[in-house]
Amino acid sequence: MADAARAAILPFFRQSNIETVNKLSKGFDPVTVADRNAEKAMRDVLALHRPDDGIFGEEFGRVEGSSGRTWVLDPIDGTRGFISGTPTWGVLIALSTQDGPVMGVIDQPYIGERFVGSADIAVATGPAGSMSLKTRPTLNLDEAILFTTFPEVGTADERSGFEAVAQRVRLTRYGMDCYAYALLAAGQVDLVIEAGLNAYDIHAPIAVIHAAGGIVTDWQGGPAHEGGRVLAAANASLHAAALALLRDA
Amino acid sequence: MADAARAAILPFFRQSNIETVNKLSKGFDPVTVADRNAEKAMRDVLALHRPDDGIFGEEFGRVEGSSGRTWVLDPIDGTRGFISGTPTWGVLIALSTQDGPVMGVIDQPYIGERFVGSADIAVATGPAGSMSLKTRPTLNLDEAILFTTFPEVGTADERSGFEAVAQRVRLTRYGMDCYAYALLAAGQVDLVIEAGLNAYDIHAPIAVIHAAGGIVTDWQGGPAHEGGRVLAAANASLHAAALALLRDA
Repeated sequence: MADAARAAILPFFRQSNIETVNKLSKGFDPVTVADRNAEKAMRDVLALHRPDDGIFGEEFGRVEGSSGRTWVLDPIDGTRGFISGTPTWGVLIALSTQDGPVMGVIDQPYIGERFVGSADIAVATGPAGSMSLKTRPTLNLDEAILFTTFPEVGTADERSGFEAVAQRVRLTRYGMDCYAYALLAAGQVDLVIEAGLNAYDIHAPIAVIHAAGGIVTDWQGGPAHEGGRVLAAANASLHAAALALLRDA
Repeated sequence: MADAARAAILPFFRQSNIETVNKLSKGFDPVTVADRNAEKAMRDVLALHRPDDGIFGEEFGRVEGSSGRTWVLDPIDGTRGFISGTPTWGVLIALSTQDGPVMGVIDQPYIGERFVGSADIAVATGPAGSMSLKTRPTLNLDEAILFTTFPEVGTADERSGFEAVAQRVRLTRYGMDCYAYALLAAGQVDLVIEAGLNAYDIHAPIAVIHAAGGIVTDWQGGPAHEGGRVLAAANASLHAAALALLRDA
């Protein structure tokens, strides 16, 4: 499915003639032809190999299945990054039960990088070859690197929560889209905090980060796979420290 | 030189045991072993092939030459990105006279991308092959995509100037380090505005963007190659519009 999505998307990346459609009349939510083509390509693979599974995709909605398994698809997570030419967007693929994701893929087609996590697998492949995914043992917030995509984060309250953590960490960086979750799973960064996510934005990252030893919850410590406010942490110590600050805010 | 820098840096990228040294007792300015090794490797190439040229490098300072030409080197521009594992840092190489840069290279070793600009050359090579560099014809600010690395930009005054432009554009994104200048030259984004730059941060981007048809000045419209406040624009129309807002602020 990730291979099929790559083939569907790459011809449109960094082209000047991308047809962009604003899904929302207010705000800025570009959808490209690549986005739709990639989800169709992934659904074709599922129709052939997993006809009994359900599908929930960003572009074409829900198809109920009979197996108890659902594929959760975001063909291009980070469309703003995509239209800017940055290699920070990704194809997100998760296999989920009603309890949440059990397998996830974060794929970056332009770099040719793929991060895969499940109960049995925690591996990245890319330009430098193959590596095991393992989150960092960073103990304290003042040693931690924190990522989010937009400085405004979400609402004013959500921004306050984020800032409470950002003021305590060693380094805060912006703009990485789903690539930030991949970097957390790969042991490069320690925290990702975002708000206003959709379910299909976070299913795959949850599975990849779990497989690498990390923790993903909402800002109250509950399950995050419905979307909304998300806290991803490299380990339990950092998760507890960040969660306390987010709860207070 | 860019090949030599790649070979020196990549063994240290995304390793957990990077030796980081804080050059400045205040603030956060990490320098890695990779940074020093890469500049040494580039200086070795120059000693062999261009012994009469001067060198100005971030890590090892100035060597006067007798040819009137100086190589301006930043072995890892975007060290914060580097230590976070993001593929947004780059090797910057410029050949400059006293009037400014005449040739520049922005190299991203992990992706394997290289952007080169001079009077005769404007080309990028990377995972998708080779492409000509050409900036966009975007006419108006409300159609433009703007990049900067840090939301705070610089001082409070500098942030005000940046915000005056950001409020007028279609999309503002953060965190790309020198890769933002490469994206401007490649016709993917329209404006990059930064402050507090060093000369070695901007020499190579100036040459690459000039070669692609863009304009780089300071916030008063003067030369930018000494560093400080930088406005890079895809074309004269956008440059004039952004410059007017920066001057007023």
